[in-house]
Amino acid sequence: MADTFPSDSIGLVTPQTLHFDAPLTLDCGRTLPRYDIIYETYGQLNANRSNAVLICHALSGDHHAAGYHSTQDKKPGWWDSAIGIGKPIDTTRFFVVCLNNLGGCKGSTGPTSLNPETGKPFGPDFPIITVRDWVNAQAQLSDVLGIHQWAAVVGGSLGGMQALQWTIDYPDRVRHCVAIAAAPKLSAQNIAFNEVARQAIMTDPDFHAGHYYEKNVIPRQGLMLARMLGHITYLSDDSMRAKFGRELREGKLNFSFDVEFQIESYLRYQGHSFVDRFDANTYLLMTKALDYFDPASEHNHDLAQAFANVKAQFLIAAFTSDWRFSPARSREIVKALLDNKKQVSYAEIKADDGHDAFLMPIPLYQQIFRAYMQRIEI
Amino acid sequence: MADTFPSDSIGLVTPQTLHFDAPLTLDCGRTLPRYDIIYETYGQLNANRSNAVLICHALSGDHHAAGYHSTQDKKPGWWDSAIGIGKPIDTTRFFVVCLNNLGGCKGSTGPTSLNPETGKPFGPDFPIITVRDWVNAQAQLSDVLGIHQWAAVVGGSLGGMQALQWTIDYPDRVRHCVAIAAAPKLSAQNIAFNEVARQAIMTDPDFHAGHYYEKNVIPRQGLMLARMLGHITYLSDDSMRAKFGRELREGKLNFSFDVEFQIESYLRYQGHSFVDRFDANTYLLMTKALDYFDPASEHNHDLAQAFANVKAQFLIAAFTSDWRFSPARSREIVKALLDNKKQVSYAEIKADDGHDAFLMPIPLYQQIFRAYMQRIEI
Repeated sequence: MADTFPSDSIGLVTPQTLHFDAPLTLDCGRTLPRYDIIYETYGQLNANRSNAVLICHALSGDHHAAGYHSTQDKKPGWWDSAIGIGKPIDTTRFFVVCLNNLGGCKGSTGPTSLNPETGKPFGPDFPIITVRDWVNAQAQLSDVLGIHQWAAVVGGSLGGMQALQWTIDYPDRVRHCVAIAAAPKLSAQNIAFNEVARQAIMTDPDFHAGHYYEKNVIPRQGLMLARMLGHITYLSDDSMRAKFGRELREGKLNFSFDVEFQIESYLRYQGHSFVDRFDANTYLLMTKALDYFDPASEHNHDLAQAFANVKAQFLIAAFTSDWRFSPARSREIVKALLDNKKQVSYAEIKADDGHDAFLMPIPLYQQIFRAYMQRIEI
Repeated sequence: MADTFPSDSIGLVTPQTLHFDAPLTLDCGRTLPRYDIIYETYGQLNANRSNAVLICHALSGDHHAAGYHSTQDKKPGWWDSAIGIGKPIDTTRFFVVCLNNLGGCKGSTGPTSLNPETGKPFGPDFPIITVRDWVNAQAQLSDVLGIHQWAAVVGGSLGGMQALQWTIDYPDRVRHCVAIAAAPKLSAQNIAFNEVARQAIMTDPDFHAGHYYEKNVIPRQGLMLARMLGHITYLSDDSMRAKFGRELREGKLNFSFDVEFQIESYLRYQGHSFVDRFDANTYLLMTKALDYFDPASEHNHDLAQAFANVKAQFLIAAFTSDWRFSPARSREIVKALLDNKKQVSYAEIKADDGHDAFLMPIPLYQQIFRAYMQRIEI
């Protein structure tokens, strides 16, 4: 990275941490007596506090959604393609907030934090946390920031699920919900992939039932496998073919179990690099939050009933080659909203990039996303 | 199992082993100086030896395709639904041969066999073996059995690939080829799944670079994960939904990492039970044979060229919900054959069972399969 940033970047940003002393009661019945939330903001809150946009992150995301932490950073935040000057979430117009969710490993209270009851890291004793718990914690953060109502709550994948949950649990506090590449609940196949990832981590001999911090090891093998597997589900068969095909690294078969195909090389790299920047206990929690998300379950498994009292307007977007959360899953959400005569825009975007498309600067996607955000009154 | 067998079963069968002393040169350049092949036969070879059918097994299959080894067996052979009296491969009409492929772990020479050069098990020193190598070994077996020409070579998945390879390498020795739920080569996504399975095995601390036999351990965790992952790709999203949905084992969330959803329970069971009956080094070899299969690669990547000299007639069948080797992959084979004006029947069968459908007694599938086999002149 040069010492200058792209002109549409929000440039240098500094995370902030808020400490909460009021206990948070969780879906599992347990209570977090106190907790920290780390977050970033981009742009300026306007005088009547009507231009705030909340970004919710997905499985391996964090609070650093846009801009740079230093001039030495090789890459900007994870959703820099969507957040910045003139970008779909235009920081000249919106005040953008992104936080690391509870259970995370990037600064908010999670398994790596000290458990006040024991003086040791929570590890596996950190409570299993749900999308609703996250939304409640996000509401606490909103209060402290003086944001009574979000102009929009926005997220992709697991982030989109949080945006949907906001409209259900805090109907008066969300004017617009943007849920991209999401689903109303996981399918058995989705749960199956999560379960293999969890088993990879939990059966790693270095997992030590989650107490690996004390042993000064990490369940590398398991976390690497979980990430490799994740990556297969983030890409489409087509995007893999386009990116890697059956290309051989050395041009010919080597008749060994070393890396031969480019796709193998890519996956091993993704797996190895993840291990050093993500916590295995957090990974477990995130997959469980995905498995548990099912707002219809409390409404006789009728999704339309779950959305009966929402007041927000919606943009639901999906990508044709996404087989993790396919367009059919987004259309379930759209149908449930339309059954309630809610205002909903639906975009099914032709893209070869699979589930990962939601993070990419695909022109049609950006155009639709920008147009929707521009229409939001502030 | 009671002391009687179903009336359409071929009943008790006994495997036989043949020892080959003539060296077999492999695609990798190495030579197996001698080897054993274990096989079973069902039905009677007719006087002019024109009714022989070769069954090729898939990744985790073996020579025991039909019937029972003892009256105590809980289950018959892996393709008993297709092989028997009045079944699609009718043993009153055909003489059926099924063998365990080289590199296997059920009786044919493989990684668990003693390496004559060292007096220890081959382990990871067993040569990487290809579909073509298997077909060459199967041809040696055919010679010993006195079968110059197969009435049909039949297989599903990786077995279908062997059937296709037969028609290319031994055009005069195959009258009919039945390739079910196969593909002309693996996609990058297929290779990616295999690579995660291999990494699961090879990074297991109990793998010991493949020399685990000497340590009296097996890479349980890795092989279990590989199998769990495999099972996800064998089933369709729809069949998982139908079988397991989001059913909770105990009716409610338990907010722990124990088994909660039925699909988790199923996958863990499949993973654990596999470990005791399959060898990890064999699993690695089988995935590699899949990755390497690409008959077009020696013909300017033109599949039609690869099939230019085949003489067999073909039944190519695929299942609508198979996302491992989708119908589109079978249609590539059909097109390449039609480009050569070969005789080919194609069946795209509506079924919810995913890739596993090829093993199941689906009525329309059995009807088509039976009709094709009955048409074969003997």
